[in-house]
Amino acid sequence: MTNINHNYTELQGSYLFSEIAKRRTKFTQENPDAQIISLGIGDVTRGLPEAVIQAMHAAVDELASPGSFRGYGPEQGYDFLIQAIIENDYKARGIEIGTNEVFLSDGSKCDVGNIQEIFSQDSIVAVQDPVYPVYVDTNVMAGRSGAFNPETKQYEKIVYLPTSAENDFIPSLPDRKVDLIYLCYPNNPTGMTLSKAELKRWVDYAKANDCIILYDSAYEAFIQEEDVPRSIYEIEGAKEVAIEFRSFSKTAGFTGVRCAYTVVPRELKGKDANGNILLVNDLWNRRHTTKFNGVSYVTQRGAAAIYSPEGKKQIASIVEYYMTNARIIREGLSSLGLEVFGGVNAPYIWLKTPNGLDSWAFFDKLLSEAHIVGTPGVGFGQSGQGYFRLTAFGSRENTEIAVERIRKLSL
Amino acid sequence: MTNINHNYTELQGSYLFSEIAKRRTKFTQENPDAQIISLGIGDVTRGLPEAVIQAMHAAVDELASPGSFRGYGPEQGYDFLIQAIIENDYKARGIEIGTNEVFLSDGSKCDVGNIQEIFSQDSIVAVQDPVYPVYVDTNVMAGRSGAFNPETKQYEKIVYLPTSAENDFIPSLPDRKVDLIYLCYPNNPTGMTLSKAELKRWVDYAKANDCIILYDSAYEAFIQEEDVPRSIYEIEGAKEVAIEFRSFSKTAGFTGVRCAYTVVPRELKGKDANGNILLVNDLWNRRHTTKFNGVSYVTQRGAAAIYSPEGKKQIASIVEYYMTNARIIREGLSSLGLEVFGGVNAPYIWLKTPNGLDSWAFFDKLLSEAHIVGTPGVGFGQSGQGYFRLTAFGSRENTEIAVERIRKLSL
Repeated sequence: MTNINHNYTELQGSYLFSEIAKRRTKFTQENPDAQIISLGIGDVTRGLPEAVIQAMHAAVDELASPGSFRGYGPEQGYDFLIQAIIENDYKARGIEIGTNEVFLSDGSKCDVGNIQEIFSQDSIVAVQDPVYPVYVDTNVMAGRSGAFNPETKQYEKIVYLPTSAENDFIPSLPDRKVDLIYLCYPNNPTGMTLSKAELKRWVDYAKANDCIILYDSAYEAFIQEEDVPRSIYEIEGAKEVAIEFRSFSKTAGFTGVRCAYTVVPRELKGKDANGNILLVNDLWNRRHTTKFNGVSYVTQRGAAAIYSPEGKKQIASIVEYYMTNARIIREGLSSLGLEVFGGVNAPYIWLKTPNGLDSWAFFDKLLSEAHIVGTPGVGFGQSGQGYFRLTAFGSRENTEIAVERIRKLSL
Repeated sequence: MTNINHNYTELQGSYLFSEIAKRRTKFTQENPDAQIISLGIGDVTRGLPEAVIQAMHAAVDELASPGSFRGYGPEQGYDFLIQAIIENDYKARGIEIGTNEVFLSDGSKCDVGNIQEIFSQDSIVAVQDPVYPVYVDTNVMAGRSGAFNPETKQYEKIVYLPTSAENDFIPSLPDRKVDLIYLCYPNNPTGMTLSKAELKRWVDYAKANDCIILYDSAYEAFIQEEDVPRSIYEIEGAKEVAIEFRSFSKTAGFTGVRCAYTVVPRELKGKDANGNILLVNDLWNRRHTTKFNGVSYVTQRGAAAIYSPEGKKQIASIVEYYMTNARIIREGLSSLGLEVFGGVNAPYIWLKTPNGLDSWAFFDKLLSEAHIVGTPGVGFGQSGQGYFRLTAFGSRENTEIAVERIRKLSL
C-alpha cells in the first residue's frame, strides 16, 4: 500500500464550519419551524454590482465566437486587471507596485494556503491566536507544526501570538526566533485593526529579525478610519519583508465568482540551503505558473469592472450596507451591556460571551433560544475561548431581527 | 534572510513554452510581415458551445440579486454538476462512481500538480518519457526528484518510462519498485493511446506491486476507436489503484473558463508511517477543502450545460472539427513520407523529424521556412528528442495552409 503524507495525521478533527453545520442541521431537524438566521460563516449575501454583471455578460459573449475567443491567459492574470489593481489599490495611495509583482488567483484561501510551499520545511511559523485555521492547517500538512499537544490544544512548533481584550487585541512580538509571521488585518475573526505605528513595529521587527510577514488583507475594503493602514506597503521598508494578500470576495461579493491577488515585491529575498540569495517573487512565479492556470476570463473582466467609476460607487454602497449592519449589531449588543469588539473597520463583531459561558455553550444557547447561528471563538484558537463571532454579511432585515432576538434573551 | 524551499533550486530552466515564445518573438521582430501559424501550445480556438454561453449568461443574472445570489459553494463542487458527470461520463459506460468521489476544480493542471501533496515525501515517482512537464516539476518542488543529472538530463530518483516508435509508444513496466505512476491517455504529447488489454496490464501491475496510478485523461473526449478505454475504471479493480483526472478545457473550450474534475474512489487506500490504513479520498477531501474554495458558479453552470442534449451535440461538432484538422495534418504529412503518430484518438500529432534533425533544429526550420510554430518533442523529455508535436486546435483554414507550407519545404 502506498505511503501517504504522514503530516496529515496531525490535523485535528474536521473544519470548524463542519461542526457548526452539524449542530445547525440537528437543531433544524428537531425544530423544523424555527426561522434560523445565520450570522456565522463569512459569506456575503448581496447581489454582484451592476457594473460587474454587465462586464461578465460582455465577457461571456466574447467567448462565443472564434474571433473574440480567449483561451489560456497568462497564469499571473491579464494586464487589464493587474493595471487596474496597481493604479487604484496602490498608486492612488502613493505605493509603487510593478506589474510583475501582482499575481491573480482564484482566491485568498488558496494563496495563503499555498504560499508556505516556497519556504523551507523547517521554517518556524508564527500565527495570531485566534486565527483563520487555513494558516495553521496548511503548515501542519507541510510538516512544520510538530505534534499536537492535546492539553494545550496547540502544535508544539508553532508560535502562537495571543490576542484578547487583555492586550487590546494587539499581539506581542514573538519571544523566540520565527521565520514566517501570518498577520491578518482587518482581522478575521476579531474584526480589530492595527494603527500605522503598530504595524510599523512589526515591519521593523521583521527587518531586524530576518523574517517574512504574510499579510492577509482580505477585508481591506471595510476600513473606515484614517489611521488604519490599507496596505502593509504604506509602511516604509515593508516591501523587503512582506507579501500581501487581497481578495475580491468580500469587497465585491466574489465568494462564488472567485478572484483574489497576491503582491510579492521584487525587493523580498530569501536564501537557499547553500546561502545563495533568491528573489521570493521568482519562486512564487515559478510555483504559480507550474501549478495554476489563470483565473477565469469572465471573472477577471468582472473584477476589472469594480475599478470603473460606476463599479467604485456600487461597491462603496455595498460596503456601506454591510458596515451599517455591523454598527447595528455592535450598538445593539453594547446597549445590552455585552462587551463588543471589532465591527468598526471590519465586517466582524467579536463579543465576549456573557456570564463566562464558553464559546460552544454560547453557540448552543444562541441557536436554541434565539435561532441564530454564529461562530464560536474557540474554533479559531485557544485565545478565542469565551468569545463569539457575528458577521455583518446578513440582510438588513435579518440583522435587525437577530439583534431584537438577542435583546429578549436572558443573558 | 528566510530560508526558501531548497528543492526549487533543482528545477531546470524555464518552462518549455517560454522558450518557444522567446524564439517566436525574436523571429517576428526580425520578420514583421511573416504570417505565423501556431500549432504549438495546446490551446483551443473555437468559441464556446451555444448551450454553455446561454447557461453562463443565466448564471451571471442569478448573481445579480440577493434572492438568487450564490456565494461560497461546496469546495467539491455543486451537486448539479457532479450528478451530470456521474450520469454521463461514468454510469452511461457502466461505471458506478459516488457523489463523494468527484472533486471539481479550476483545472487539471492544478489537480495533477497538487495530488502528490497527499503522498509521502519519499514516494518513488514514475513518469512516461516524453511527459507533460507538470508531473515532474511538482515532484521536484516537493523534494522527490533527487538531483538533476546534466548528462542524462534526468532526475536521479525519478523513474522514466520511455516511449517512442521503437516500442510502439507502449511504455514498459517499471524495472524497480515505484509508488506513484503518472499515466496520460490519450497521451500528451504523443497523441497515442493504450488498448483495454494494455491498460489492464498497468492496473494489474499496480495491484500486485502496491502502487497508485495517477491517470490523466484530459483528452478523453477525442477518443474515436472502440477498443480504447474512456476511463481507467473500465478496467476491473482499477478503483483500488487509480485516481482519474478529467478536464473541460479541450472537450468544451474551457481553457479560459477553468473547470476540471478528479475522481478519487473510496476503495483506494494508503498507509501512514505507523501502518494505519487511510482512505486516499479522505486525504484529498481534506486537502481540497483546506486549500481550495470551489469553482466559479458561472463556470459550473456552463460546464453542466455540456451534458444537455444541445450541449452534447455542440461539443460533438467541435470535437469533429478538431479531429478533422488532425486527419488533415496526419494524412498531409504522411503523404510527404514523414513518419506520423497520434492524431487518431487525440488532437496531437507526433512526428519523427526528417533527416535526423533534432527537435529544436526542426522547430527553427519550421518557424523560419514555413512560419509555423510547433513544439519540440525534446521539451517533453529525452525520449522526445527527434520528435515534434503539432496540434489540431488551429482553425481549419490555418491547418490547411500549414500543411501546404510544409509540403513546399525541402525536407
